[in-house]
Amino acid sequence: MTEFELIARYFSRPCPDDAVILAGGDDCAALRVPAGEALLVSTDVLVSDRHFPAATAPFDVGYKALAVNLSDLAAMGGTPLGVTLGLALPSVEPAWLHDFAKGFYTLAAKHQVCLVGGDTVKSPVLSLSITILGSALPAKMLKRSGAAVGDLIAVTGTVGDAGFGLRAVLSPSTIPAALRQHEINYLQERLNRPTPRVAWGQKLAQFAHAALDVSDGLLQDLTHILSASNVGADLILNDVPLSSAAQAWIAAEPSSALRPLSAGDDYELLFTLREEDWARIDFQATVIGRITAESGLRVRDAAGNIVPMPVAGFDHFAARAEL
Amino acid sequence: MTEFELIARYFSRPCPDDAVILAGGDDCAALRVPAGEALLVSTDVLVSDRHFPAATAPFDVGYKALAVNLSDLAAMGGTPLGVTLGLALPSVEPAWLHDFAKGFYTLAAKHQVCLVGGDTVKSPVLSLSITILGSALPAKMLKRSGAAVGDLIAVTGTVGDAGFGLRAVLSPSTIPAALRQHEINYLQERLNRPTPRVAWGQKLAQFAHAALDVSDGLLQDLTHILSASNVGADLILNDVPLSSAAQAWIAAEPSSALRPLSAGDDYELLFTLREEDWARIDFQATVIGRITAESGLRVRDAAGNIVPMPVAGFDHFAARAEL
Repeated sequence: MTEFELIARYFSRPCPDDAVILAGGDDCAALRVPAGEALLVSTDVLVSDRHFPAATAPFDVGYKALAVNLSDLAAMGGTPLGVTLGLALPSVEPAWLHDFAKGFYTLAAKHQVCLVGGDTVKSPVLSLSITILGSALPAKMLKRSGAAVGDLIAVTGTVGDAGFGLRAVLSPSTIPAALRQHEINYLQERLNRPTPRVAWGQKLAQFAHAALDVSDGLLQDLTHILSASNVGADLILNDVPLSSAAQAWIAAEPSSALRPLSAGDDYELLFTLREEDWARIDFQATVIGRITAESGLRVRDAAGNIVPMPVAGFDHFAARAEL
Repeated sequence: MTEFELIARYFSRPCPDDAVILAGGDDCAALRVPAGEALLVSTDVLVSDRHFPAATAPFDVGYKALAVNLSDLAAMGGTPLGVTLGLALPSVEPAWLHDFAKGFYTLAAKHQVCLVGGDTVKSPVLSLSITILGSALPAKMLKRSGAAVGDLIAVTGTVGDAGFGLRAVLSPSTIPAALRQHEINYLQERLNRPTPRVAWGQKLAQFAHAALDVSDGLLQDLTHILSASNVGADLILNDVPLSSAAQAWIAAEPSSALRPLSAGDDYELLFTLREEDWARIDFQATVIGRITAESGLRVRDAAGNIVPMPVAGFDHFAARAEL
């Protein structure tokens, strides 16, 4: 199969969106950015066996690769315009490509985001590079630097699920016996098919002060907001929202109670806002702390005592925290 | 070194351009696209030992990775807005990163294009994914589909140099003895530091009918224009512009005379235009043929006789043509 045949067969769905002037088949794709809005762009690279287990189903690889990037856009409060896909493949396996494309396009259709271009190359290692393009009003963009002293700190959905899901995939023998199969499935689904919070990010853009998506771990990602905003924070450990599956895991293995603070890959939105704006939240979110003038990040238990912090998060060139 | 330290040390030069609202350090970069212009975007992936010899100097890897993408923008007649870089590294080698960044930024400075974001990950194989962002007036974009019967076919600069340069790098024992060192150096420089024809592309956008950049080989790339425009072409072999170094190589090894037609990596602009517009060309370009109503591509010698064609070009999932 030639590169052109591969693209024609798997990656040539039409772009119905009026925003796309030209997609595929030329030197560049061409898109319209809404008048008055800024172009938003983010690039992520995912390497097999590093960013996802090598045995991950190709549907999930395609789904997650796009989800991770849409999540970056969500964290800015942006609206998707299009996406490019760089695909480095050890070989051409039609069944793999079919399922990968199906996963990618399944999520793309949910968010009306069009694959406008990319590159397909041979490489000894499977890797993906995705660049998401979107737009937002410059004055409404959700930056990391806007947190203000007294702001509530909140997070969408639940955290820690993907971390438990990864452990379930990589070390199935360590899954607590008390966990039910549907709970294990749920955690793995959260790992493999994260939900980018695009619509919630757009709502938050109207009033939140700062936001990012939790990709490297709650604590590490929160420190990015704190340093960009030059503030500190108190976090209440017991208020961190956990799924019933994560709660079941921790109940069976109490030593994993701090894991949700450092596990990555949840792709929930972590944000700060004025207390009086909390009433405007009409989606799943939980207050987990407060921005302080005192610098640093303190995790406290229900009694207000400081809890010693685990490893903060994931860094690609430091020791890997979560495996 | 952590990922954040790596970015801070090597990839954090400021973006002076007014077009850049936000670069690095947030979930997305934010850029302004000039009012009324379309956003242009192109992604390329380069894998070590496949798209460039593994021994390529890191300065050249950085330079060429950006050049290849700027060339895609040039082929649309676009103006650069910014670029993202996905860097997959087997390990952190400060000397390599220093030189790579120097090469990348050297070319970036020439074109006032700002590195606005990206991703740095660990991978068993060195690879780069670059997404270039630019803009152009939608009505002026140089597409592949605009070639008209009777158009002249022309190409900027000279072709075939990078192909000979690659052979000189990979098989130095096959370099003809008659070649002088400065000629060998020139061919390798053309391979390692191609010149993206950004300003020439912007001029061509005013009147050319179709264009692309020669990355896969002159013949193969020309067929892309022909099929997109639903036309054919006559190409005059003797009119294909060759550097004095390429001419010296062919003089010493006549069997390589057709190589410049199929060798890739030159990143010259191949374009078509009305004969009466030829006088508007004020840069290095050569007429090499004419668009015909008869479909297909015919290469002719000076007497008008058809020359049998060599392998057409490079395809990543077909047999590799040039090695």
